[in-house]
Amino acid sequence: MRAITITEAEEPIQLTEVSMPTAGVGECLVKVKAAALNRRDQWIREGMYPGIRFGCVLGSDACGVVEEGPEKWNGKEVIINPNVNWGDDPEVQSSKYSVLGMPENGTLAEYISVPEHRLIAKPEHLNDEEAAALPLAGLTAFRATIKKGLAGPGKNVLITGAGGGVSQLAIQFTVAAGANTYVTSGDPDKIGKCIQMGAAGGFNYKEEDWFKEAAVIGFDVIVDSAGGNQMNNYLKVVKPGGRIIMYGSTTGYPEKLDVFRLFWSQAQIIGSTMGSDSEFEEMVRFVNDQKIRPTIDKVFELDNYLEAFNRFKAADHFGKIVLSITN
Amino acid sequence: MRAITITEAEEPIQLTEVSMPTAGVGECLVKVKAAALNRRDQWIREGMYPGIRFGCVLGSDACGVVEEGPEKWNGKEVIINPNVNWGDDPEVQSSKYSVLGMPENGTLAEYISVPEHRLIAKPEHLNDEEAAALPLAGLTAFRATIKKGLAGPGKNVLITGAGGGVSQLAIQFTVAAGANTYVTSGDPDKIGKCIQMGAAGGFNYKEEDWFKEAAVIGFDVIVDSAGGNQMNNYLKVVKPGGRIIMYGSTTGYPEKLDVFRLFWSQAQIIGSTMGSDSEFEEMVRFVNDQKIRPTIDKVFELDNYLEAFNRFKAADHFGKIVLSITN
Repeated sequence: MRAITITEAEEPIQLTEVSMPTAGVGECLVKVKAAALNRRDQWIREGMYPGIRFGCVLGSDACGVVEEGPEKWNGKEVIINPNVNWGDDPEVQSSKYSVLGMPENGTLAEYISVPEHRLIAKPEHLNDEEAAALPLAGLTAFRATIKKGLAGPGKNVLITGAGGGVSQLAIQFTVAAGANTYVTSGDPDKIGKCIQMGAAGGFNYKEEDWFKEAAVIGFDVIVDSAGGNQMNNYLKVVKPGGRIIMYGSTTGYPEKLDVFRLFWSQAQIIGSTMGSDSEFEEMVRFVNDQKIRPTIDKVFELDNYLEAFNRFKAADHFGKIVLSITN
Repeated sequence: MRAITITEAEEPIQLTEVSMPTAGVGECLVKVKAAALNRRDQWIREGMYPGIRFGCVLGSDACGVVEEGPEKWNGKEVIINPNVNWGDDPEVQSSKYSVLGMPENGTLAEYISVPEHRLIAKPEHLNDEEAAALPLAGLTAFRATIKKGLAGPGKNVLITGAGGGVSQLAIQFTVAAGANTYVTSGDPDKIGKCIQMGAAGGFNYKEEDWFKEAAVIGFDVIVDSAGGNQMNNYLKVVKPGGRIIMYGSTTGYPEKLDVFRLFWSQAQIIGSTMGSDSEFEEMVRFVNDQKIRPTIDKVFELDNYLEAFNRFKAADHFGKIVLSITN
């Protein structure tokens, strides 16, 4: 079968012929119809991810059809929980934890074999590409906003970097939960699109003083994956006692974190990554109940995978970048 | 009466003659028997505190006897809740909040007038100096360790900078709550004293690798007021999902906070300062129930106030520095 693997070549990602996986006991063989890219795929491409195993099939997200496995799954349309060995503690991943697609073979392939407990029925209101866009970003956004952020009715929520796949779902989840959701972006067009999606407003973080206007509103919850020196601005716009949820640090580490402001305002900086298996199920229920549709930036054919990765690398997308794998 | 006030002189703190306060409606006039120093007093002395009002009587902590006021308080031995206008939200102080002793006249005086709702009976098992040592440090330590840190039976707790007045009570509170309490200090003698008080062990933070041994234990809760670059070591020794409570930043701000470690370990950095009025009452009940006695570093006569402040400034004390004010 064809799969995108990580290699030692100058261009580390290659569309190659690899052997078909087989379904072991309690596993299902899933024919992958669509798969989405995530930031970690690009990081692995750049050699910026710990423990890279060459030859590994990339990809954490997929929508597909079960072709082999326990009777009840036969022919079912499914999506895949990207957690490998989350473990028994709902709060924290185990020491054996990894994300599907490194070191375990991932979803950017025509077939994947997955333990059946990590399958869940594809939400019926989604097409294949939307369903493929949901798992990793949805799980990350759900834990960050709803579970750790406690974003609910009437809360003022700020989602930074509005165009990202996680951010898009974070906006949709918090709007659906009844929050007053604001966004930041470096691109006014993206802010406008978010307002069309139900956001109450937005701020251009390229304007040095964006935080002054934001501070007038005051945020109960801020959800961010950029990190860097903007973190001190978050401490200026978070309400006393508010929560800043960090699930990434793409712009690096803050140079001088204003600890005084942190303790005097009784604020919290809360780390969040992925989510538990039960949160994954809860997230999919929420998406079904609220009829949430992940924003798709663009769908690429598998053959054009390099174009898809390069679009991700350029970081100008709005929503998820998806590969169409099989018909 | 005599009082220590902040002045514009070269030595800003001066023992001066000021007019006696009077007890208004619902207020008590308290004859101060003993009063304790806090870091903020030294900061005000150094001009490092916002909104300094010259002529203000310093001091946030006192034990005394009510000489005038509502009948029920007459002749009672009391301590004073140092919160001025905490407000209605138990989580967060109001915008009108201040700490007793700036800008409102404080406790380093022969008399102070206080609203009766901020008085509470002196714990009977404490002498005047111990009782004077309790309020601000006890409130800060109680919120940081018990309320925000959730330090309870079987939890591994790390209290940094073992000699400070808040740290000493944080050690006592967490030991009393059934936690396995460890400390850090730059002074092995202080670590030894903490172990005599019930701490399970300690680490010398001056040793560059102290965190390696600490990481083997792994901490559910870390309580710190130093900040600075040690914060990245705290992220190495906190357990996944653990809580780092910051109530100060005496060594400054961290140069590069390791946000990756924060989110990957699902850890939290939680700001905490002072505590609500109901937490103050809860703290005093806890001290009564557990018969906790604040550690006294040294008691100075009021006339020797400069010596007391200079001992605080040298930052080599172990427990609270107290002034004996009246007999």
